[in-house]
Amino acid sequence: MFLSDRERERKAAILKVESEVIGAAREFLREEGFVELLPVIVAPLTDPLRHNTDRALIEAYGGHWHLTRSMIFHKQAAVGVCEKIFSFSPNIRVEPPDWKETGRHLWEFVQLDLEVRNGSREELMDLGERLLVYVLSRVLATCRAELEALGRELTVPTRPFPTFTYREAQRRFGDDYEIALSREARTPVWIVDFPIDVREFYDREDPERPGILLDMDLLYPEGYGEALSGGEREYLPERIRRRIELQGLDPAQYRALLSLAEEGLPPSAGFGIGVERLVRYICGLPHVAEARLFPRVPGELSLI
Amino acid sequence: MFLSDRERERKAAILKVESEVIGAAREFLREEGFVELLPVIVAPLTDPLRHNTDRALIEAYGGHWHLTRSMIFHKQAAVGVCEKIFSFSPNIRVEPPDWKETGRHLWEFVQLDLEVRNGSREELMDLGERLLVYVLSRVLATCRAELEALGRELTVPTRPFPTFTYREAQRRFGDDYEIALSREARTPVWIVDFPIDVREFYDREDPERPGILLDMDLLYPEGYGEALSGGEREYLPERIRRRIELQGLDPAQYRALLSLAEEGLPPSAGFGIGVERLVRYICGLPHVAEARLFPRVPGELSLI
Repeated sequence: MFLSDRERERKAAILKVESEVIGAAREFLREEGFVELLPVIVAPLTDPLRHNTDRALIEAYGGHWHLTRSMIFHKQAAVGVCEKIFSFSPNIRVEPPDWKETGRHLWEFVQLDLEVRNGSREELMDLGERLLVYVLSRVLATCRAELEALGRELTVPTRPFPTFTYREAQRRFGDDYEIALSREARTPVWIVDFPIDVREFYDREDPERPGILLDMDLLYPEGYGEALSGGEREYLPERIRRRIELQGLDPAQYRALLSLAEEGLPPSAGFGIGVERLVRYICGLPHVAEARLFPRVPGELSLI
Repeated sequence: MFLSDRERERKAAILKVESEVIGAAREFLREEGFVELLPVIVAPLTDPLRHNTDRALIEAYGGHWHLTRSMIFHKQAAVGVCEKIFSFSPNIRVEPPDWKETGRHLWEFVQLDLEVRNGSREELMDLGERLLVYVLSRVLATCRAELEALGRELTVPTRPFPTFTYREAQRRFGDDYEIALSREARTPVWIVDFPIDVREFYDREDPERPGILLDMDLLYPEGYGEALSGGEREYLPERIRRRIELQGLDPAQYRALLSLAEEGLPPSAGFGIGVERLVRYICGLPHVAEARLFPRVPGELSLI
């Protein structure tokens, strides 16, 4: 924890930017009519993810509770009550220890997670671009001194951002297109139309293009990698069940979700944007751990 | 999760108020020069509390990590970097199952936790009053329809709020003064000067009145109980060590905190205010669980 004066100043500048990012995003979403929900930290059910992440569970009152990996299912249920919701949602993902080298992973991070009842992918892409432009503009206006101290030159990208399909990105850059494409890009770039076998079961399959999902990722330029990830959602019980099976998961584990869907989940779309990664991009930081005062880096222990 | 139309409308009204509370508090604190930190969910060290709360631990990377019960030690370290900080900090406290009857307890809740370098108790009491008045005024201005739908008549209290010492409160209302005094009060009420043996070791002992702490609680009127809790902090390693021992805890468990204090923790003061309890008071809710879409009630399991 001991920091030299110079390290302390650098950290204070980054944290000031982060505070502005949180504030600007909140202000933007409130203006857009979103309701902020308190985050969910423990739940009997959480995002299965596709990659291998160790389970983080606690026991309480005779039940098992996952630490939240994302608020996906809670968001889907929440838009049945409020039309547009968001949450600054702390996520725990116990990633492989060697992921500390990627510069992009923390095992505790905060995701600005939002969802819109009856939203379409295109509306959410539009919202995501405007959110990003708003936040960058606000930080440039209010944190000039901090960005200068960090040696960061930042420009606000022009909308709309270019869009690639997953197949195009893969053709040009291979399966690990994320970093290669992000390195080449001079502006944020959308990737859309993921194939059904590379994404989680809750991303909605296009009824007119079987096997293709109505989802999207946004990549930062300059090699900073993924900015946000989202899409339209499966909300009909029989479709959710089919997709759970397709992902090789056990529908019995998702009984609660299926029973919610049987009661009636509304159609919705949404995305999640990692706050520390956004701050990393804005500040030009080598490692996302710098966006935290008490970073949780995969494979590392912490003093406090 | 199934809600009738009427329940859904009631829930939407409460969540709208909650969103306004979060937004107003944040706006107020930004204006006061505070930096918002992302919350800490997992940590090798957390608030010991004084009452019996089950431990919630996970294992990762060969270490044990507590789910955060409060950000107290992280706040003390953080003001070494930024002068004034706050966080909407989700806390997990696995309370006894019968606490579900109190109407005031959730085992997952969010605390607006803040700290000020070189702050005094009196400054923090002033800040707490202004924060509460600001939030209540904002909600009254922006959520008139929601409060009416909830049948809640709310007035903004006049400052300064009355202050009792712990001994006065105890003399008049007994050891369980909290609810009795809160029921009788028509305005929020401060309790100050807790004796050393009823509070956690991090509340600072008054150098001029041994055995008396420079701390405070705020109680809501109308029987809603505790609003916030805080105080000046012990920051010198030898005093922290003595207080840890006085509380019957093992200093070896707090090596990290003691080593931070040896490097130099700044003097500070702060408080934490429970967001759901604030919303309960503002909306006049029988149980704090109503302030959550997915409440975690002691002793109860959840579907999602």
